[in-house]
Amino acid sequence: MKKKSISIFGVTGSVGSSTIELLRQRKDEFEVIALTCNKNIDLLLELSQEFQPQSIAVSDENFFLELKKRAGNNFKCFGGKEGLKEIANLHSDIVVASIVGLAGLSPLLCSIKNSSIIAIANKECIVAAGSLITESARKNNCQIIPIDSEHNAIFQILDGKPKKDISEIFLTASGGPFHGFDNKQLSKVTPSDAVKHPIWSMGKKISVDSATLMNKGLEIIEAHHLFGIESKKIKVIIHKQSIIHGLTLMNNGALFGYFGKPSMLNPIDHALSWPDCNNNDIDPISIEDLNGLSVESVSDEDYKSLQLSRYALDKGGFYPIFLNASNEIAVNAFLNNQIKFIDIPLVVEKVIEEIGHSGNKSLETMGSLDEIVSADNEARIKALEIIGLGF
Amino acid sequence: MKKKSISIFGVTGSVGSSTIELLRQRKDEFEVIALTCNKNIDLLLELSQEFQPQSIAVSDENFFLELKKRAGNNFKCFGGKEGLKEIANLHSDIVVASIVGLAGLSPLLCSIKNSSIIAIANKECIVAAGSLITESARKNNCQIIPIDSEHNAIFQILDGKPKKDISEIFLTASGGPFHGFDNKQLSKVTPSDAVKHPIWSMGKKISVDSATLMNKGLEIIEAHHLFGIESKKIKVIIHKQSIIHGLTLMNNGALFGYFGKPSMLNPIDHALSWPDCNNNDIDPISIEDLNGLSVESVSDEDYKSLQLSRYALDKGGFYPIFLNASNEIAVNAFLNNQIKFIDIPLVVEKVIEEIGHSGNKSLETMGSLDEIVSADNEARIKALEIIGLGF
Repeated sequence: MKKKSISIFGVTGSVGSSTIELLRQRKDEFEVIALTCNKNIDLLLELSQEFQPQSIAVSDENFFLELKKRAGNNFKCFGGKEGLKEIANLHSDIVVASIVGLAGLSPLLCSIKNSSIIAIANKECIVAAGSLITESARKNNCQIIPIDSEHNAIFQILDGKPKKDISEIFLTASGGPFHGFDNKQLSKVTPSDAVKHPIWSMGKKISVDSATLMNKGLEIIEAHHLFGIESKKIKVIIHKQSIIHGLTLMNNGALFGYFGKPSMLNPIDHALSWPDCNNNDIDPISIEDLNGLSVESVSDEDYKSLQLSRYALDKGGFYPIFLNASNEIAVNAFLNNQIKFIDIPLVVEKVIEEIGHSGNKSLETMGSLDEIVSADNEARIKALEIIGLGF
Repeated sequence: MKKKSISIFGVTGSVGSSTIELLRQRKDEFEVIALTCNKNIDLLLELSQEFQPQSIAVSDENFFLELKKRAGNNFKCFGGKEGLKEIANLHSDIVVASIVGLAGLSPLLCSIKNSSIIAIANKECIVAAGSLITESARKNNCQIIPIDSEHNAIFQILDGKPKKDISEIFLTASGGPFHGFDNKQLSKVTPSDAVKHPIWSMGKKISVDSATLMNKGLEIIEAHHLFGIESKKIKVIIHKQSIIHGLTLMNNGALFGYFGKPSMLNPIDHALSWPDCNNNDIDPISIEDLNGLSVESVSDEDYKSLQLSRYALDKGGFYPIFLNASNEIAVNAFLNNQIKFIDIPLVVEKVIEEIGHSGNKSLETMGSLDEIVSADNEARIKALEIIGLGF
């Protein structure tokens, strides 16, 4: 069997680590073309010794010379934004796109032209430039496969079913630690309360997004782009056990569900194997885990973050960029005790209100990726300004 | 849009009635070619007036002359076994095969040669002659679509997924009214206890099969033939709410489920529309119905009917016919207070033991359908003899 070639962008992060774990089990099947990291060149070099890629890159230019020196003649080394693009211009059968944030967008758009499959874990890029990404993928005959658990579950359920046959898709949310709290309770929660996620072990930022449900808001935008489904057909449900990863109701009344353990290994293994199904050793869910599951419909009215996300999606253009960027700043301010938990969506709302009117442009008429980056910056500055004025 | 032509075998039964209900909603899409009934010619004529088929037939020859007289020149009339075969020789895009029992086998095998899709609700035929049916369907490029809720759910989940990728399929059983009873309790249950099925409203025979789990035993055999999956990969689970109709675990760890209300309309509508997905008006399941579901693995050791079914499937040939026929006699004897509930599988076991050795032949080397019918008769006679000798 011919080996599949693979490049991993962001190999030292959590998605990268899970991918590496799977590649270790499937060494005969894959040839690693390139690996990249943000700053962690120690781990990058260690993994490069193990997997012998042709090329490696570090995003942060400050580490480039050290990387080059330590790599010697073993690997072609690249650094900074341009370095990532060089890597993205190499042909790979599969690219794992797990760079965090908009820094991943430029290499992602290159990768789409040079690979058959993109396993994507970069939420910000799809939120900010979903239509650019899916349009380019269509033109370049590149298959985008989401590897976050919710969208991967929906992808696996749909499995080529035409989108016209879909009545509703349901994104499951654990609800976070504050589900059911009233406004008074919410106004008192602290950063340390917020980062105690009940099921998934996650970073602080995403734990807060999980508690505000902004994470689901962003996922609604993602799902819209990935599956071509209108916002009103994308519902959010609270499901505390994190066993159901996705549900899809078809127009003929069939409700399909995808169940699995809360692990990144399954979706990544799916993407690495697609369109085949790999007979893997990942411990599957037990049928008994389905006992006593709870599901609860979520009304947009109860979560400002969902309202704002749908609004941004409906408006289109740069609005989702404003949404995502201002949310990042607001979450950070909350984690630094500058604003309250309940202020997070208020900051986002204010940013969208204030710069939405003047700053919004259509992605289609956009001149360059730089405009996305400026829109992102503009929203961050506006958010900082709003927070600075006091809440 | 060109109308699809359809014939319904057994139109006056419960599957026939549900099919008619759907056809009433979709009159523009279907042209009814033929309708058949067993004895109920009043209803057959009424439905024929409404749907204007070219041909109609009554299985019971005693009703043929009356049917012919009352039909006048409006419809071509047929009667008896040969009459059903005449109907099955007409070309239809879709045939709904819902004749009860082995009487359906001969017309079914003709229909496979003359139609593109068979929506099948005849369990006995698949159990008795599964390999003949699937082999003939393959040769004649006819798609068999099961319309009992469990197999239809699995069919919809699999949706063309290769069988090599399937790790396990789970058939859901309500468990019937005696689930959890010990042997002492079971020895005392009466026919009227047995026919109180908790969820589905069903006939007496199938209610008893549901309580013994022989219904699932027969469904294991069906699933084996319909999906080409080995017995050991087909599991039974008790699921009291009858909301999950099927579950499939793939080799990559993905567990897919199909949820729906306990109604025949969904699977029949699916089969009538396949490969398209009909945007129907059938009230779908609510997401909240997924709350607090229970599932429980079933061990074959706890149910003799499951052991016997797997044994018959492994042996192949006429064994499943012996199983099904002797079970019918035993259930009938229980309903007539001749044997106890716990004796039902014992009768089946004895019949298989006594005639299995001498009477078993391979379906592949079988001369004619008559041999299936004789095997079926032989098992019935043996069962009656065993019951007559006393339990």
